[in-house]
Amino acid sequence: MDQNELKKLVGEKSAEWVEDGMIVGLGTGSTVKFMVDAVGRRVQEEGLKITGVTTSIRTAEQATALGIPLKSVDEVDHIDLTIDGADEISDDFHGIKGGGAALLFEKIVATNSDRNLWIVDETKLVEKLGAFPLPVEVIPYGSQKVFEKFEKAGLNPTFRKLDDGEFLLTDSKNYIIDLHLKRIEDPHALADYLINQVGVVEHGLFLDTVNTVIVGRQDGPEVLEAR
Amino acid sequence: MDQNELKKLVGEKSAEWVEDGMIVGLGTGSTVKFMVDAVGRRVQEEGLKITGVTTSIRTAEQATALGIPLKSVDEVDHIDLTIDGADEISDDFHGIKGGGAALLFEKIVATNSDRNLWIVDETKLVEKLGAFPLPVEVIPYGSQKVFEKFEKAGLNPTFRKLDDGEFLLTDSKNYIIDLHLKRIEDPHALADYLINQVGVVEHGLFLDTVNTVIVGRQDGPEVLEAR
Repeated sequence: MDQNELKKLVGEKSAEWVEDGMIVGLGTGSTVKFMVDAVGRRVQEEGLKITGVTTSIRTAEQATALGIPLKSVDEVDHIDLTIDGADEISDDFHGIKGGGAALLFEKIVATNSDRNLWIVDETKLVEKLGAFPLPVEVIPYGSQKVFEKFEKAGLNPTFRKLDDGEFLLTDSKNYIIDLHLKRIEDPHALADYLINQVGVVEHGLFLDTVNTVIVGRQDGPEVLEAR
Repeated sequence: MDQNELKKLVGEKSAEWVEDGMIVGLGTGSTVKFMVDAVGRRVQEEGLKITGVTTSIRTAEQATALGIPLKSVDEVDHIDLTIDGADEISDDFHGIKGGGAALLFEKIVATNSDRNLWIVDETKLVEKLGAFPLPVEVIPYGSQKVFEKFEKAGLNPTFRKLDDGEFLLTDSKNYIIDLHLKRIEDPHALADYLINQVGVVEHGLFLDTVNTVIVGRQDGPEVLEAR
């Protein structure tokens, strides 16, 4: 199986975790897209009744097209389960997310979820985080100063830009600075540093968050219980 | 002198701190408005050459009308001095800002300034912070959940709304939650709690920030060196 087939495998597998009556957080990304398709099929074919809480405009559009009823995180009193992807998962089950620039809404939904399930192909499992660039969402005003501070701190920042050279804007109209760190020895210390920088809205370190991981492996999906 | 006259007094006094060639952060608020007027007069009458860095759309409009050249915080390599107001200053020189909802840009500019000068009438000096409601800028998505968390934590939150009942939007299109705390015993601990809540962009506690305070007193302006 190629990477795309592994993503499809775990995306479809994870739809089995969704139960009738649940309020389900729907993540964002290429693996999640397969999960939303599969949940949509269950809604249409089995009459599964759920409420989806989305994390991006993209996923909202897909879910609506599939007939999955949606509410905002502010309109539900809880979220039973959120299914989302991840860009990297360490062997102690911390994650980097935000490759798709939806990290802020993803973290808001994850924080308000009783349980978090991440679905990844096996290339996303690493010993330590950091080979994947760590996204940091920043307020545009002053972002150059934040960038310079990250440079001086040796965090190898780059602004995320579109093909036309313009700054990528998140759903909240902020910029993304990617930190090219190679290896993050102490993610909690880094998270503490980042969140305390004025102008930083959120960062892509999702620490102590995930409960269950489904990994797409060549010989089938593997379920890991993290916490 | 009434409160407005005290504001005018310190606003005009603080303009004396501005020197030829400086890059000057211009705050936001009713006291700052007098300072910007006075700086504008010096530009026009004395030929004072400065570059202003503004903290809000309101102040930018005022400064432009007065002929003060402006740059964004990202276009200058440093800021010599920022002059801003404050809603409360404690006896150990920490502050609450954001009554005018400009706390995010004010903190971005303050953080990037070599020195910070605050101008207040004497009613703003308090022993401990907290009688003034503490503003917290939050991402609209998930803001109800943040509000509920603050309620459970006993922080007495209210959303800031306009006269027509709509949510006030900051210059970054976020909401403001005001915390009615009466007395903040440990502002550093509270700041640490707030900034770590997902969905919180920034808060109005300006700790270890101000260098000089000019206080408008009945018998004239008093200059306090804080740090």
